Amino acid sequence: METTPRNPARRRLLAGSASALAAAGLGASGIARASDAPAKPAAAAPAAKPAAASTAKPLPPYAAWKDADSLIVHSANTIETRRSAFGDGIITPSRQLYVRNNLPPPDAAILNDRDGWKVEIQGVKQPRTLTVGDLKTLGVESIATVLQCSGNGRGFFPHKPSGTPWEVGAAGCVMWTGVPVRTLVEYLGGLDGTPAFMTGTGGEVLPEGLDPKSLLVERSVPREAMQDAMLAWEMNGEPLSLAHGGPLRLIVPGYTGVNNVKYIKRLAFTAEQSPAKIQQTGYRLTPMDAKPSPDQPSVWAMEPKSWINAPGANGQAVKAGRVVVRGVAFGGMHAVKRVDVSIDGGKTWKQAALIGPDLGKYAWRQFALPVELTAGQHMLVSRVEDTQGNVQVENRFENAPGYINSSWRDHGLAINVS
Amino acid sequence: METTPRNPARRRLLAGSASALAAAGLGASGIARASDAPAKPAAAAPAAKPAAASTAKPLPPYAAWKDADSLIVHSANTIETRRSAFGDGIITPSRQLYVRNNLPPPDAAILNDRDGWKVEIQGVKQPRTLTVGDLKTLGVESIATVLQCSGNGRGFFPHKPSGTPWEVGAAGCVMWTGVPVRTLVEYLGGLDGTPAFMTGTGGEVLPEGLDPKSLLVERSVPREAMQDAMLAWEMNGEPLSLAHGGPLRLIVPGYTGVNNVKYIKRLAFTAEQSPAKIQQTGYRLTPMDAKPSPDQPSVWAMEPKSWINAPGANGQAVKAGRVVVRGVAFGGMHAVKRVDVSIDGGKTWKQAALIGPDLGKYAWRQFALPVELTAGQHMLVSRVEDTQGNVQVENRFENAPGYINSSWRDHGLAINVS
Repeated sequence: METTPRNPARRRLLAGSASALAAAGLGASGIARASDAPAKPAAAAPAAKPAAASTAKPLPPYAAWKDADSLIVHSANTIETRRSAFGDGIITPSRQLYVRNNLPPPDAAILNDRDGWKVEIQGVKQPRTLTVGDLKTLGVESIATVLQCSGNGRGFFPHKPSGTPWEVGAAGCVMWTGVPVRTLVEYLGGLDGTPAFMTGTGGEVLPEGLDPKSLLVERSVPREAMQDAMLAWEMNGEPLSLAHGGPLRLIVPGYTGVNNVKYIKRLAFTAEQSPAKIQQTGYRLTPMDAKPSPDQPSVWAMEPKSWINAPGANGQAVKAGRVVVRGVAFGGMHAVKRVDVSIDGGKTWKQAALIGPDLGKYAWRQFALPVELTAGQHMLVSRVEDTQGNVQVENRFENAPGYINSSWRDHGLAINVS
Repeated sequence: METTPRNPARRRLLAGSASALAAAGLGASGIARASDAPAKPAAAAPAAKPAAASTAKPLPPYAAWKDADSLIVHSANTIETRRSAFGDGIITPSRQLYVRNNLPPPDAAILNDRDGWKVEIQGVKQPRTLTVGDLKTLGVESIATVLQCSGNGRGFFPHKPSGTPWEVGAAGCVMWTGVPVRTLVEYLGGLDGTPAFMTGTGGEVLPEGLDPKSLLVERSVPREAMQDAMLAWEMNGEPLSLAHGGPLRLIVPGYTGVNNVKYIKRLAFTAEQSPAKIQQTGYRLTPMDAKPSPDQPSVWAMEPKSWINAPGANGQAVKAGRVVVRGVAFGGMHAVKRVDVSIDGGKTWKQAALIGPDLGKYAWRQFALPVELTAGQHMLVSRVEDTQGNVQVENRFENAPGYINSSWRDHGLAINVS
């Protein structure tokens, strides 16, 4: 296991997590592991470079409006965008965006009165329950963020972690509209003290007879994340769908998907992290030989990552000659500075052009590089550097649940040119 | 009639058009008028502030995938976005985007082999016919532009011009992906001489037995427009739909919709403007008392324009108290500098905040201003200024066909607060 990663962003991530945990007074515990998807028998897990699911499953009813041709349905709660479906318009079309739910979504009836949806705000000087209608009177902002499942890239881990074997498609770049959390906090008199965490609670309906903590979707992130966070009621210019957390979702820019709590019913500024299993032992960077524990880093901020989507994804034919290599790149917490592309698996590199408008540091950039390809096998890889000098890692950070795979080598696209 | 508009952008527009026409050696002619939509009996024309069509027509088959609830179907070739449907995500969702076709679209079979679609390039040193597949090897870029029908706002003209009575919704902000025209021209050896115009020809199927010039969709714009123009195969991150000109469309940023030729089959750099009726006498800023003629300014560049979409559009209830006024603003050819909002019909103004990322000078900006509204009637208006100091006009430029209505007064939103 790699215990001292050389990537500065990761070093900061790990250090930040550990100190935040210490500040919250959380110690080790032996609660059973919870990865971000139902466990699967090892036999069903894919090889290191799994192909798209060969037996096509139908879209679940709550996501029936999506474009089935662009998607791989792993299960009713885990739907991935095909690598070949990513276009170059920066914003991922809603119909193509991946879906990952930790629990089945609430009944669609909660969308009948969007403005009536209630969210309880705690840990501020004047705690209150506000409706979405109330929130809409406070202010409005729009922000583009990369939304990426913590387990995106898990399918490339050779040890076949349990959980969905996502390749590249549990990610998208999305435009959110809502009220900034800092505007909301200011309206409610400011924070009550200096709580270490911002904790969001999802409005999923929990089965009766079980310990709520075992299933509750409640996530805590370091308080500083509130600076750019938002309570969003719109995605990509349309009222937020049930599949993506409508009527109201907490958006924490730069943080992995699970931290962007759907159907949010409570936003609290808390001294400690949520006691829910999904926080305590779920979504931890658990070492290969260990059990999940709160003293392991929580899966929070994303890292610099890029991958190539064309040509040749999902078996599309590529003819020899000039082609334009295209892909996406993001910094996680910082803007993209440059992207380099290699058509020989990383032996030689050439800088790609960033195309299209810059939607801000939390969005991804599309990149393009015209190259000449000869007939035969080629391994196309890309590597992003952010404005802080953090470079996308070559090798994945091994961890038992298979989180935050940012390895440029793992994300290489092997193509056969004829 | 206003013959000497005070708006500098308009003055330049008119001057530029006249000189371009002079350069092309075009004189007056008496060809019958052609507005941008089939003529309607005057009785069917709307009042100065027309309401949404009361008898809902179904979406035509080629646009059946759109969101009917967000749209007003005027006819099979003219579909408008409802004012209340505009969100704050900057990019207009494809499902909500207006449609305006000058002729019925070609058969959808033309999308079966997108990469095989051919476009003839003329007026360059090495004229060639290229396929979309060829174009994709040359380079790729993405650009966000306001797409707006020349007749958007026609519904506010009191003289009830023939043509579709669009209010605000024949417009959207769209992300295009394709190859820049300048990249293409460079690849083909550069321009052959210094042609005055860039002329695009649409691939619609023309009825037999008629003079092709009477129906051909072929538009010429000043050559300089090529600098930012693009041949686009993707819209909003997805392959370009038939409704919006797929498999390939000419995008001329800053220019009204008709100049963005759909199903483009020929791109030529020409000494003269197209002889097609749609260019010669169609889309001209014809004076109220005159017949359309090539010596009148062609409808090309857009002007600074803004309007308010919330609260209270399309009869939505508004409660007294604090509300956030929201809308869209664009400069046409220049970036937005500021937007001011008035809740008393233009007596007093307050600067609004521009929200969300800046997608470039051809995109629109969303704006927001929190205000206190008392019970009763209010007239909400907005006014944009571009970075060149051009201010949105107060009053429309009267013209017979009802083009380019940018009047902030006409676009006011009258609401009833309870």
